[in-house]
Amino acid sequence: MIQVGIVGGTGYTGVELLRLLAGHPDVSLQVITSRGEAGNPVDRIFPNLLGHVDMVFSEPSTEALSQCDVVFFATPNGTAMHHTPALLEAGCRVIDLAADFRLQDPTVWEKWYGMPHACPDILTEAVYGLPEVNRDAVRKARVVANPGCYPTAVQLGFLPLMEQGLIFFSGLVADAKSGVSGAGRKAALGTSLCEASENFNAYAVTGHRHLPEIRQGLAAISGQSVDLTFVPHLTPMIRGIHATLYARLATPESPLSDEDLHQIFQTRYQNEPFVDVLPLGSHPATNSVRGANYCRIACYRPQSEDTLVVLSVIDNLVKGAGGQAIQNMNIMFGLEEKTGLDLPGLLP
Amino acid sequence: MIQVGIVGGTGYTGVELLRLLAGHPDVSLQVITSRGEAGNPVDRIFPNLLGHVDMVFSEPSTEALSQCDVVFFATPNGTAMHHTPALLEAGCRVIDLAADFRLQDPTVWEKWYGMPHACPDILTEAVYGLPEVNRDAVRKARVVANPGCYPTAVQLGFLPLMEQGLIFFSGLVADAKSGVSGAGRKAALGTSLCEASENFNAYAVTGHRHLPEIRQGLAAISGQSVDLTFVPHLTPMIRGIHATLYARLATPESPLSDEDLHQIFQTRYQNEPFVDVLPLGSHPATNSVRGANYCRIACYRPQSEDTLVVLSVIDNLVKGAGGQAIQNMNIMFGLEEKTGLDLPGLLP
Amino acid sequence: MIQVGIVGGTGYTGVELLRLLAGHPDVSLQVITSRGEAGNPVDRIFPNLLGHVDMVFSEPSTEALSQCDVVFFATPNGTAMHHTPALLEAGCRVIDLAADFRLQDPTVWEKWYGMPHACPDILTEAVYGLPEVNRDAVRKARVVANPGCYPTAVQLGFLPLMEQGLIFFSGLVADAKSGVSGAGRKAALGTSLCEASENFNAYAVTGHRHLPEIRQGLAAISGQSVDLTFVPHLTPMIRGIHATLYARLATPESPLSDEDLHQIFQTRYQNEPFVDVLPLGSHPATNSVRGANYCRIACYRPQSEDTLVVLSVIDNLVKGAGGQAIQNMNIMFGLEEKTGLDLPGLLP
Amino acid sequence: MIQVGIVGGTGYTGVELLRLLAGHPDVSLQVITSRGEAGNPVDRIFPNLLGHVDMVFSEPSTEALSQCDVVFFATPNGTAMHHTPALLEAGCRVIDLAADFRLQDPTVWEKWYGMPHACPDILTEAVYGLPEVNRDAVRKARVVANPGCYPTAVQLGFLPLMEQGLIFFSGLVADAKSGVSGAGRKAALGTSLCEASENFNAYAVTGHRHLPEIRQGLAAISGQSVDLTFVPHLTPMIRGIHATLYARLATPESPLSDEDLHQIFQTRYQNEPFVDVLPLGSHPATNSVRGANYCRIACYRPQSEDTLVVLSVIDNLVKGAGGQAIQNMNIMFGLEEKTGLDLPGLLP
Repeated sequence: MIQVGIVGGTGYTGVELLRLLAGHPDVSLQVITSRGEAGNPVDRIFPNLLGHVDMVFSEPSTEALSQCDVVFFATPNGTAMHHTPALLEAGCRVIDLAADFRLQDPTVWEKWYGMPHACPDILTEAVYGLPEVNRDAVRKARVVANPGCYPTAVQLGFLPLMEQGLIFFSGLVADAKSGVSGAGRKAALGTSLCEASENFNAYAVTGHRHLPEIRQGLAAISGQSVDLTFVPHLTPMIRGIHATLYARLATPESPLSDEDLHQIFQTRYQNEPFVDVLPLGSHPATNSVRGANYCRIACYRPQSEDTLVVLSVIDNLVKGAGGQAIQNMNIMFGLEEKTGLDLPGLLP
Repeated sequence: MIQVGIVGGTGYTGVELLRLLAGHPDVSLQVITSRGEAGNPVDRIFPNLLGHVDMVFSEPSTEALSQCDVVFFATPNGTAMHHTPALLEAGCRVIDLAADFRLQDPTVWEKWYGMPHACPDILTEAVYGLPEVNRDAVRKARVVANPGCYPTAVQLGFLPLMEQGLIFFSGLVADAKSGVSGAGRKAALGTSLCEASENFNAYAVTGHRHLPEIRQGLAAISGQSVDLTFVPHLTPMIRGIHATLYARLATPESPLSDEDLHQIFQTRYQNEPFVDVLPLGSHPATNSVRGANYCRIACYRPQSEDTLVVLSVIDNLVKGAGGQAIQNMNIMFGLEEKTGLDLPGLLP
Repeated sequence: MIQVGIVGGTGYTGVELLRLLAGHPDVSLQVITSRGEAGNPVDRIFPNLLGHVDMVFSEPSTEALSQCDVVFFATPNGTAMHHTPALLEAGCRVIDLAADFRLQDPTVWEKWYGMPHACPDILTEAVYGLPEVNRDAVRKARVVANPGCYPTAVQLGFLPLMEQGLIFFSGLVADAKSGVSGAGRKAALGTSLCEASENFNAYAVTGHRHLPEIRQGLAAISGQSVDLTFVPHLTPMIRGIHATLYARLATPESPLSDEDLHQIFQTRYQNEPFVDVLPLGSHPATNSVRGANYCRIACYRPQSEDTLVVLSVIDNLVKGAGGQAIQNMNIMFGLEEKTGLDLPGLLP
Repeated sequence: MIQVGIVGGTGYTGVELLRLLAGHPDVSLQVITSRGEAGNPVDRIFPNLLGHVDMVFSEPSTEALSQCDVVFFATPNGTAMHHTPALLEAGCRVIDLAADFRLQDPTVWEKWYGMPHACPDILTEAVYGLPEVNRDAVRKARVVANPGCYPTAVQLGFLPLMEQGLIFFSGLVADAKSGVSGAGRKAALGTSLCEASENFNAYAVTGHRHLPEIRQGLAAISGQSVDLTFVPHLTPMIRGIHATLYARLATPESPLSDEDLHQIFQTRYQNEPFVDVLPLGSHPATNSVRGANYCRIACYRPQSEDTLVVLSVIDNLVKGAGGQAIQNMNIMFGLEEKTGLDLPGLLP
């Protein structure tokens, strides 16, 4: 049994980790910390876990966490980097679901997150945990930076086109729509039902923190810097991300058809347990992955013109957060990758 | 492995049965029929099942179904009663998720369902599958009538009060609210997003088919006929039933407190795997049981006056349909009752 | 032109008052105060009012407000009572949309609102502004207590039955469902989209502040004290209240039919501009009154038994708050009662 | 008073026309036809209109319609073109809210709408009713083609950039999101609450009927053919369209700032009664125009790179249908353009 600790388990990322770990056959949940809820039973905060997680939140303690094989950080940005060195020292492995280890360049990190990085040396060691790209590195990693929700959907969508060199690396567009749970479990007027339901709007159009993460990832895939415009939108639903991606065909005279595109994606992802290329003619829907760890994708060349369109959906809390974190853990500990994650979505 | 067949698997009850059975360790899904979708892969109709149910809908065939140990009917009312005799003959056991075997009196059935009953003799044999009341009878049953969604929430709420003789059996009120999936998977203007979201209304106030079922069940529990008013309401959400129950205290001068009521419910349900009595002060929320097989309950005596209030929630598609059906199957086949159902709800 | 001031215009009651007053032909909006938003343009806080309300929030000032003919208080409970005496002194009339003047007994007020009343002498003078009951008194009132949202829907539903002496005054049940805007414009986890959508739950079952208000109103109507159980529920929509009311027939042997009940309601409300009795067989839906000042009602005797059921819907922000306040203003100033309120609901 | 007729008033476009016309001071509603609902009161189909539209649906009759000054067609595509010639003959003017007169080339119309055009000669005469582009022509038009909902939001967004020659006319992207009411008032599984709420997906990615309309409009604005990719998405809300537009700057070395862009838009739209350019830093939200005839816009150059982003929102049933139709009527009949449309949105 893998001894698992969770730091900061009172957000939606935390409850989703708990829901999935509670059913994981090879995991023993040892400790879950929360400064604010220390002493309170987990199932009082998350009544869906009643009968499934019989634990009490505890004060964060490096000593208690050090007993674990792996520690998940489901904390705000800027927390994990302060605790990771000590945990590594103690022989723990770390999976951070926040952004602390996602950007390799500490200068870029500081610019976007507004604080100096506490352990820039570990940045170089940390592995960006997108299994479809970095599976081998994840296997040996001591520190995994679990990707952001938008970056997961966007990178998996562009990946096959970039690897095949089919598109220009400039003028890329990622128009992304997220359910409200992406904003976290918190009281805020903008995400109240009265303001956010029956409404749709873009936000952070001039610059969102996931932009440098996406660019870094796409640059790693393509071997060159990419020029991408990223616009996130708040969507009146709880879960789900839909990324609509636009790229110009590098060779417009190419006879590339929708069938060809389908085949290219199919070939790339055929052995991936959590990426499904949908049948030709399909439009992936976020509700087909609700509560499940899948990314579902389709790619088209509308009207046979020069712009390709990729449609990519995930559940932001699963493949975009807790599920992918457990997928990374499975890889790190040599388990079958689907262990504990082999669940269909909840429909309707 | 229990060989399982499903008749009529294209509704929401069907997809929920499939989602749960796909993860059930002791079940082998043999056949799933649909007249309308015969020949089509299940995962084309229900994309959430992609990778989990690799089957094709087939034409209904008594012969194929006869090979099964148990057949679930997830069909419209009036279907199962035509096929059940032949299946029993062939040695199958039957769990009907529709209403065909719920009412013991064929005259009452005819009145409310508008057609003669096809096998009234089997009515007497059929067991009403509310495990918290009829567990022993279910164990031996050849035919189980899976309870309606509203009746499940209502009966479990009144049960402890009736068994203890605490309330008058007249003037009972069940004010029940259901998510839209209770209306089934179908195209209808009234359940379209534009009409049913941002809206709330009662329906069938002068008489709903679940009324005689609830009365029959409460009469069986209390040993006498009961007088109940039942008003269902359409609620702008997908899943969930919230029943708010009102009953007058038989002895108004009684000092019965909220604590006493909590204790009475706690005692009644302490060994029930799927009924949770919530801590004093709680108001059960439907989203705490989303996708899960639990009924969660609280009972109060507001302002220490004569009217008791019970709050009872379920997921109409799980404890109110597919989950309870599998719970019944587990009992019928001697399995641990929680097998395949030990899943927390999806929150948020 | 009536010179109008609004105190505390940054909540949903405030924006709804502004939306309606902006189109009122006999109103000149003079001042709108907000301590928190003083100096900010109204249309920055409420972008729907862009081009319609070209005002800036100002610091509360008795002097400025004193210039008005009428001042609306859209403030938290316990505010209006501190400012009303000075405004009356200055010759203003006051309409309070909060609870300060709703309960006639200061002891009861203190018990439910947790603070001493600042001007109990004015309590006796204040008129409870339910026009269908108190139109004449409203006409002459200096201070109008605008009714609560739930109390409006509940009292209008019971009114005809009580006036005709058709029901027992004990064992009454008001099961009420409200959209989330009833909780006000504020950041709170419980009313966030992630927690409140796809969810339904009761709250305050052991005692809600609208209970004494409803009881006081029903007692005034019936001339005797009434025994009522009131359970409010949070419903996953923005606007709307649906009250489902249950009462036992005083003479069960009576042949009273649904048609008779329809006629009784029709007769009572035929001259009311904002109460519609729906055709026999209808179930009033909250979306038929979205954004409009109507209360729509139906009454039935299900299964010809002893319990009557009334269905009553309003928009909690209009007939349950800002619209009714303007209706009261129209009456107070001798205008045609529908002035500025003659708007159909928004459907879909 | 303008004598008005409506053909086909049972859809959402119809009810919205009725809601707005009911409050229009210069309109007398003469006839409203519906083959399916002939003989039924309008307020039975649309209960929000109770007390506001006291009419009965009638069988379509050219004779009755001929008495009107203007006839609105709120019918399916392919209906208005059969009746328009006779109405023009009789001296009526026609505003078609469907697509019959939107495309000037009958060959293109046939390709996208799958039927031959019934009156191609009138196509040349018909005026495309986007007032911000064609106000003068609308004034004199006998036949106005009311623009589609998506095309309205998209064209108003690109307009200032194209008129100023700031962007390349190739590689344009319009990523558009619509509320479900855009699919019309009908029973369909895909737009049921259970399927469409808590869900997001693209549709018609390979080709939507609004694509040729947008291209034709943008070509007319820019004086040259444009290359545009248009992807519509179904959004889990009732009303609202959000178009997110992407275009590459024609001169990337230009120092064009967000302030410059704001000024360009502001200048273009300063005299437009129904287009608001939002303050710098704003993200227009669909709920700010719910029920109102406004288009609200913002334009940015994220990260000072080569791609411009325009955010444009409308209510698809108002500025995207019924409201714009009335705006056109006002222009055609020499009324002040805001008459009957001077209503703020409904928020929350």
